[in-house]
Amino acid sequence: MAASRDTILGTIQRYVDLVGAGTAAEIVDLYAVGATVEDPVGSEVRSTRESILEFYSGLEGLEQQSTLLSVRIAGTEAAFQFELITKAGDQTYTLSPIDVMTFDDDGRIASMRAFWAGEDMAVS
Amino acid sequence: MAASRDTILGTIQRYVDLVGAGTAAEIVDLYAVGATVEDPVGSEVRSTRESILEFYSGLEGLEQQSTLLSVRIAGTEAAFQFELITKAGDQTYTLSPIDVMTFDDDGRIASMRAFWAGEDMAVS
Repeated sequence: MAASRDTILGTIQRYVDLVGAGTAAEIVDLYAVGATVEDPVGSEVRSTRESILEFYSGLEGLEQQSTLLSVRIAGTEAAFQFELITKAGDQTYTLSPIDVMTFDDDGRIASMRAFWAGEDMAVS
Repeated sequence: MAASRDTILGTIQRYVDLVGAGTAAEIVDLYAVGATVEDPVGSEVRSTRESILEFYSGLEGLEQQSTLLSVRIAGTEAAFQFELITKAGDQTYTLSPIDVMTFDDDGRIASMRAFWAGEDMAVS
């Protein structure tokens, strides 16, 4: 049976929380076996657990805050916008991508595509 | 050559404006030949000009206001959220879907998928 709206919403909220303050392994555990990650859209699609782990490892150790801004769920797919604030030295980087995900029957992420470009990054 | 970021942004802004206050024919003119529309995601994909025209004809004559809330463009694809307020009698319906579009080299919409569900509609 397809994952429920609440289950999907829970996965999204946990994903956003973990991107801000989790480990790469915790994030990858939200993904289904065989899942794909394309971040940003147009870049090479990552399709192995190792390559997805490598992608999120780049976030580990950064001082970050993440907030879910808006979610729209349609069946077993969803689009949502979240804000990720990263502090590095004296600078603060703010990015709020729109991610599109599909989900398997257990509410695990089957695919993720992140819509953003360099122009969307604010530095202060 | 692929459509520029500015061209894509122009198409999106015009799309949102027309959904609020344009005719179905004006909206369909933003679409490329052979384009597809899936609104909401999970519903039947419309792939002929006639069926897309029929879809937007349902909006004609309604008292509506539309506002683009947020756009993220990645290459020749984009995700954006907009608010559509519809007044019907004493009631006001507010919906802010997240749409995902791909664009052809001329900046015309090659595909549109709208993420929303009944739960996202506010009635006041």
